[in-house]
Amino acid sequence: MRTELDCLPCLLRQAIDVARMTCEAPEDVRRVVSHALETLATMPDAPPPLVAAATHRECRLLTGVDDPYAALKGRYTETALGMLPELSGLVHAAEDPLDAAVRVAIAGNIIDFGHAGAEADLPLRETLAHALREPFAIDGTSALRSALAAAETVLVLGDNAGEIVFDIPLLEVIGPARIVYAVRGEPVLNDATRADAEASGLAGRVRVIDNGADVPGTALERCSAPFREAFGRADCVIAKGQGNYETLEAVTRPGLFFLLKVKCPVIARRTGAPAGSLVAAHAERLRD
Amino acid sequence: MRTELDCLPCLLRQAIDVARMTCEAPEDVRRVVSHALETLATMPDAPPPLVAAATHRECRLLTGVDDPYAALKGRYTETALGMLPELSGLVHAAEDPLDAAVRVAIAGNIIDFGHAGAEADLPLRETLAHALREPFAIDGTSALRSALAAAETVLVLGDNAGEIVFDIPLLEVIGPARIVYAVRGEPVLNDATRADAEASGLAGRVRVIDNGADVPGTALERCSAPFREAFGRADCVIAKGQGNYETLEAVTRPGLFFLLKVKCPVIARRTGAPAGSLVAAHAERLRD
Repeated sequence: MRTELDCLPCLLRQAIDVARMTCEAPEDVRRVVSHALETLATMPDAPPPLVAAATHRECRLLTGVDDPYAALKGRYTETALGMLPELSGLVHAAEDPLDAAVRVAIAGNIIDFGHAGAEADLPLRETLAHALREPFAIDGTSALRSALAAAETVLVLGDNAGEIVFDIPLLEVIGPARIVYAVRGEPVLNDATRADAEASGLAGRVRVIDNGADVPGTALERCSAPFREAFGRADCVIAKGQGNYETLEAVTRPGLFFLLKVKCPVIARRTGAPAGSLVAAHAERLRD
Repeated sequence: MRTELDCLPCLLRQAIDVARMTCEAPEDVRRVVSHALETLATMPDAPPPLVAAATHRECRLLTGVDDPYAALKGRYTETALGMLPELSGLVHAAEDPLDAAVRVAIAGNIIDFGHAGAEADLPLRETLAHALREPFAIDGTSALRSALAAAETVLVLGDNAGEIVFDIPLLEVIGPARIVYAVRGEPVLNDATRADAEASGLAGRVRVIDNGADVPGTALERCSAPFREAFGRADCVIAKGQGNYETLEAVTRPGLFFLLKVKCPVIARRTGAPAGSLVAAHAERLRD
């Protein structure tokens, strides 16, 4: 999807956040924010994650700090790992484990500092309780069930550090042997990288690859050739979060599913699902 | 006060609002927003109202629409006039009419589409009830009382259309004969102009002047010579709202008071009064 006008104030707020987290000198903060404003002034057609990626790149270049969100990511990974026995337990005890695992995976999507701002205290428990209880605003779970029944390989596109721990019960339900789990190629925002997948214990459970890009989403044109091949070959692709949705919305391929929590009015308008709601969408149906 | 980093997303949102309200063609909307982004990218040192003024000017130049908020201003003027008998009644029945009139005047400050966004439905009644009940976060009312007791001329700097009707009971308590009431020189945002003062019946009650500028605040360097003279000569100046505070904060003159509702984290930090709270501040004390 193209960056909309209503995305601009949010992208600007993100740029201010990351500049403050990364830069020590106030003049560097202002330089990063000014660069972001100049980028926004060109009214980029690209999806929002590509616009955000440019700001984060500028920050890295200016400061040499590779992963400003490292500490925050570590904290949420630990918190999520502390919840994992409970998450796995409730999925395995559920009448419909796939349904429960999808809900848990969507609940984890609240761990998003692009949306929330880096100072937010995220309501993990409330979000989990809400996700287990609420009906899906878009319910593609039966199509997902059929796709998974027929799939030899399943590619899961992870989203944020901490959030990826919430995906583990889903990986267990699907069956780890046929799963490839993809993370970002470079640190950007609080998105999960290979290091975060290792810290979360995902790397020991499923095959982990990275997409080769520094974009908080999956912009195929920026991804590595091996990733694009994996994307093309998988029988079923499960993409987590708004960033993956924003970058893959226009991609047509069968067996593509979006699991996300709707976090802003722009995505609410585009999906037709209200802000705050749970979406488990079959991409083909979303475009109808 | 200088525009802070945290003001930028808010100024951008305002620019998107006014562009959408004014421009019919999507490319004109984008042009205005892009111009605003370029202005923000220069990291202006000026107070936020001067930055906002530049966007509004660009909109007027591009579209020829002089007062995009005219209909909205008319609507809130009518609503406020419908409440006026009640507002005057409760001030006159109050044990301390000056205190009550200051509270009513601050309650009117909720009618601010710079802050709320043009589509907001403003909670006038709830805000009034809150203002009548809550303690002031900064209480300069006894200094104001003394200043008014000694003043031969009182200059009131009005803020927004509709809000200015909420100032009428205060004008009545102060005594209309010694009051000069100033409005903006040109339409900008939903700020009150001479036309709005006339539609509100203020022009028949007190002497109304305009400040000659198209800024949603009182940037003295942009104001007309007659206004600056009136500002210098008045024994007491009562400035309503955040825009007047943001532009006059650094001005040192005795007998200057700010009446406002704190509407954003930046002003909360600067004044030390929490967001949502009522401020009736003696400017000299605020700088201490």
